Amino acid sequence: MARGAERPTGDAFAALPVAVDAMGGDRAPDEIVAGARRASEESGIGVLLVGLPGQMGDTAGLAELHCSEVIGMDDDPGQGVRRKKDSSLVRSAEAVRDGRALAMVSAGNTGATMASALLRMGRLPGVIRPAIATPVPNPGTGKPPTVLLDSGANAECNSQMLVQFAQMGAAFSKERYGVAEPTVALLSIGEEKSKGTPLEKETHALLADGAGGDGFTFIGNVEGRDFFTGIADVIVTDGFTGNVALKTMEGSMRFLIGALTLILGQPHVAAAAEVLVPELLPLAEALEPEGTGGAMLLGTDGVCVISHGSSSSTAIFNAITVAHDLAVAGLVEAVAASVTEVPVPD
Amino acid sequence: MARGAERPTGDAFAALPVAVDAMGGDRAPDEIVAGARRASEESGIGVLLVGLPGQMGDTAGLAELHCSEVIGMDDDPGQGVRRKKDSSLVRSAEAVRDGRALAMVSAGNTGATMASALLRMGRLPGVIRPAIATPVPNPGTGKPPTVLLDSGANAECNSQMLVQFAQMGAAFSKERYGVAEPTVALLSIGEEKSKGTPLEKETHALLADGAGGDGFTFIGNVEGRDFFTGIADVIVTDGFTGNVALKTMEGSMRFLIGALTLILGQPHVAAAAEVLVPELLPLAEALEPEGTGGAMLLGTDGVCVISHGSSSSTAIFNAITVAHDLAVAGLVEAVAASVTEVPVPD
Repeated sequence: MARGAERPTGDAFAALPVAVDAMGGDRAPDEIVAGARRASEESGIGVLLVGLPGQMGDTAGLAELHCSEVIGMDDDPGQGVRRKKDSSLVRSAEAVRDGRALAMVSAGNTGATMASALLRMGRLPGVIRPAIATPVPNPGTGKPPTVLLDSGANAECNSQMLVQFAQMGAAFSKERYGVAEPTVALLSIGEEKSKGTPLEKETHALLADGAGGDGFTFIGNVEGRDFFTGIADVIVTDGFTGNVALKTMEGSMRFLIGALTLILGQPHVAAAAEVLVPELLPLAEALEPEGTGGAMLLGTDGVCVISHGSSSSTAIFNAITVAHDLAVAGLVEAVAASVTEVPVPD
Repeated sequence: MARGAERPTGDAFAALPVAVDAMGGDRAPDEIVAGARRASEESGIGVLLVGLPGQMGDTAGLAELHCSEVIGMDDDPGQGVRRKKDSSLVRSAEAVRDGRALAMVSAGNTGATMASALLRMGRLPGVIRPAIATPVPNPGTGKPPTVLLDSGANAECNSQMLVQFAQMGAAFSKERYGVAEPTVALLSIGEEKSKGTPLEKETHALLADGAGGDGFTFIGNVEGRDFFTGIADVIVTDGFTGNVALKTMEGSMRFLIGALTLILGQPHVAAAAEVLVPELLPLAEALEPEGTGGAMLLGTDGVCVISHGSSSSTAIFNAITVAHDLAVAGLVEAVAASVTEVPVPD
């Protein structure tokens, strides 16, 4: 059977549920199932809970797809997917492949989520390698989040892959945030085109040369200090650098917010803290990955949202909503249409 | 003449001044010269101001070494050093080489500072490539800063270089912070030794195998989220990743501190802000790169401090003090003794 041959289209596709890995994440299954219930109750989005029978808690009558195994947070992703064919992750990806769900969401083992989606849904035609796109907020700028990719799927990349990441990221920025003409920047260690490793220099030359097509405007190199400024709608880099940058932001924020919490918690500043905490909350919320709906795998033949391991029910609710809306809006088709063959530099 | 052949030793060396590039930095010459004056007046450290005659402002009688050119912040580093042989940067490095200064400090063009030091002082025997070591503070942990290297000297690295960065970083941690047995970690995208690119996998294998010798303890991989936690005394990575990580921390901190400043500056929270600002200052100071004395180039035959382009007089004062103290303590000799030949994996 050809992949996706039996997938419904049009209204029948839009009526499909989102497959939710009920067993994945540090707070599974309770927070996952609670988020799924909210999506169903508040937004009327269909949910297919994928998990061990009788071990998903109070599912409130949501549809269930049963499996017999779970890939653990610490399992080797490749081995996990190969050996645990009846796991919640593999079954979730198969539900999308087989036209039983329009998207999948998991807060489980990131590598295994990626591997399940890649191996079961497959790559879109022409895509060299799928990439993880993570929204980085730009609070106070009035701009939508910047899409950072690859934020961890491919530790090693070539310049053709990075050009495709620009194409796919731009398509995502359009679909997700309604940016009509996305700007794309290349993460490097200086603004000049001569900065970086051969990968950045080659990618810069290709993008400046228009090798990415007319789906976006390339604005050159940016640096780590340009995050949170809204400098570009999309920032492309290899999955190693992207992952380090993303986790460095996470660590920096966690550190500063932790230090602030200690300071505000001191008894002798309690009155002042009471005044300021409500002022600080909107900022804290804007920075909270929970609100963004999580990272998305781009380039697979189906929508796959990779939620943070620590996801709460709110994070899962947002992830399901985003997965549903983007699948119905045709994200996969838009990504497929954005990708071209990229010339190999001499 | 052999390099450094005429350099004084012992007390004569300790009596040498620190060569300070008076023309380098966004706030040169005023803040640079003011910092140099403080070092001389408050700490009795000798200073040799290197700059354009009559254009260094109020030098208060500090010794001067005159040049006729300045390498600009935006000049190409390699070209700048090759073409502007009578520049303040090149002359500063020559002063160290020729035994007229015991160290150099510049807040100017980072690439050109590195190139001047490298080309004029030369590499230490056995060092494959010098690296920039940047202290990353660990506020609230009771631990000294973590030394991150390479933070930008070498965009491309091999595993032998990274093992030497571990050796040199450990030597620096001992000399600068008095850490008796430094721990070294490798920056990667997961704790497991299988994570990362071939560079990280090879480096992990070499370090785990003891290829770095017994000057430090290798504790394995760390991730971007481990900064500011004091997880290791030294974190090694290639200069591309290190630079992206460092600038991402800088951007994250700048963003959050900017957002906080806006919140605290609102008229209706003025009273609460007045209570909290003094509580926040120690944290802000701990995070301020000004206090750390700047980054240091390790592996050259002479001490070279690379200060932030925006350095104030305080930053320069600290940089001169650190440069002087480490030169006298024998940092160059310690780094030279730490470095070994590293086997190339099969």
